[in-house]
Amino acid sequence: MTTVGEIGERELIARFTRAATRTRTDDVVIGSGDDAAVFLAQGPVVVSTDTAVAGRHFRFDWSTPDQIGARAVVQSAADIAAMGGRLTGVTVSIGCPPETAVDRLLALNAGIVGQTHAYDARVLGGDLVSSPTVVITVTAIGVLDDVAPATLAGARPGDVLAVSGPLGGAAAGLAVLAATEHGADPSLVVDHAEAVAAYRLPQPDLTAGPTAARTGVSAMTDVSDGLVEEIVTVAASSGVRLDVDSAAVPRADWLDAAGAALGVDPVRWALGGGEDHVLLATFTAGAVPAGWVVIGAVSEGSGAHVDGEPVGAVRGWQSFTET
Amino acid sequence: MTTVGEIGERELIARFTRAATRTRTDDVVIGSGDDAAVFLAQGPVVVSTDTAVAGRHFRFDWSTPDQIGARAVVQSAADIAAMGGRLTGVTVSIGCPPETAVDRLLALNAGIVGQTHAYDARVLGGDLVSSPTVVITVTAIGVLDDVAPATLAGARPGDVLAVSGPLGGAAAGLAVLAATEHGADPSLVVDHAEAVAAYRLPQPDLTAGPTAARTGVSAMTDVSDGLVEEIVTVAASSGVRLDVDSAAVPRADWLDAAGAALGVDPVRWALGGGEDHVLLATFTAGAVPAGWVVIGAVSEGSGAHVDGEPVGAVRGWQSFTET
Repeated sequence: MTTVGEIGERELIARFTRAATRTRTDDVVIGSGDDAAVFLAQGPVVVSTDTAVAGRHFRFDWSTPDQIGARAVVQSAADIAAMGGRLTGVTVSIGCPPETAVDRLLALNAGIVGQTHAYDARVLGGDLVSSPTVVITVTAIGVLDDVAPATLAGARPGDVLAVSGPLGGAAAGLAVLAATEHGADPSLVVDHAEAVAAYRLPQPDLTAGPTAARTGVSAMTDVSDGLVEEIVTVAASSGVRLDVDSAAVPRADWLDAAGAALGVDPVRWALGGGEDHVLLATFTAGAVPAGWVVIGAVSEGSGAHVDGEPVGAVRGWQSFTET
Repeated sequence: MTTVGEIGERELIARFTRAATRTRTDDVVIGSGDDAAVFLAQGPVVVSTDTAVAGRHFRFDWSTPDQIGARAVVQSAADIAAMGGRLTGVTVSIGCPPETAVDRLLALNAGIVGQTHAYDARVLGGDLVSSPTVVITVTAIGVLDDVAPATLAGARPGDVLAVSGPLGGAAAGLAVLAATEHGADPSLVVDHAEAVAAYRLPQPDLTAGPTAARTGVSAMTDVSDGLVEEIVTVAASSGVRLDVDSAAVPRADWLDAAGAALGVDPVRWALGGGEDHVLLATFTAGAVPAGWVVIGAVSEGSGAHVDGEPVGAVRGWQSFTET
């Protein structure tokens, strides 16, 4: 096994750069390899940064390096889509211990590059440093194509609340992996492969974001911290009351089987589970685009409600208290 | 002492956001606090990412948190200037252990915000996560104001080589701090305060980058890894020979005293020391802007030379081998 410390930063960056520049997009003037990348923006620029830390946001024994890299891109790209933007590029910073296997880093990078290309976007550059554990920071950059940005604050009484895809899958997959670690039958991972796959690499349709922005969206975000957490945020930011009908929240057809196997009400995953990265938005009634599922309504008042009951943020200071 | 784990991610992010949005710039449509920031670019967009890791790129016993934050911004901003760009905003991701003091994080953020504002730019958002050690990633975003990007590859035979400020100061400061750790008289830090300050917070004039881009620059980079390392890179990227006259390389007037105190030839710091972040550029002869100092020449051939002798990259895989 060759380690990162043996072949070194420059050689690895050179390999990353070759992988990243295999395809070109017309709006990138200068890609990886110079002091900075240069690209042409055909509209307002959207930017967001997310960091994933090994042992906290991902585990190398639960996901392949390729999945971990791809998921880091999905996570940041979802923030661009949640503004109504189209991803054009990412910058990536990776920290890792010198004893990390080169093959692991190359696979991680392949996942990053592959997912970025899947979005018709480009890896614009990055940094590689030594750190005690693997840390991946993806900064996603996009553009708004002749649409206004969809903020957290635009929901208005009379609007309807909708999501762009099924929820709870990533939480179910995480629960399956965690259960096998605590003595459950390892065949669970095979029997509920769709759930595990949804955790390892969520695949929300992020084109739903720009579509919504062209079609009467009033507020939008992505479901990264769980539906309840997000509706609390949108209700507070918009100064409205949000009501969700839990039975209307779409779930993948395999979710209930995973819930039955683990003795968990799958609706809990759909309401509270994070990291599906589907989009949550409010629309003028009657203007909900195809593919979106109405799950509730916006009215005067305050706070988030599920089936008529007020709910608070359930996960709290997740980054510092979660395991 | 209140820790980050006690007050939590959301409260800290809220405090960061308040600090970051104290000033506004006209081109920022949406700042911190939504899924992503949105800004208007008045030209091609320049983007670069750098990560600094505690214990490797900075030490809390050698610098204040404010200096560490500010320095992370300088490092990324220099990459924008090195393309000829003007910084417009940064995104910042911070990882830290839950037991980190809140005051330390607030001071770190104050340094980031203060330095960003000093560049007439804006903190556009970020992320805060739990990690085993403090890790700071700054993504700098800028624009090219009606100038072509200055790459590493544009140096042409007949050009002159110049730098935008004195070199070696950061290396001297680092050497002073390291010496006191290995038994040298602690008064060294006081006697050579300018050197220590240059290490803690390099203050290159980054307006020199856009100025150069308007004035006949052919290639440009910033001196982050040491002058020799950078001229090796520019010579290779441009396919030319670079010659540096070591006596012409500008040094701060206090550098030689620090060298005498530590028994180090200050020219070694000026040639090999990194992290001064002054700009290195090649210009058409006769087109060197005010404030730049000519240190050498570009000719046909290959490789970097100092005082007529060929030099190789001296620091190698710095991130993984340096202490």
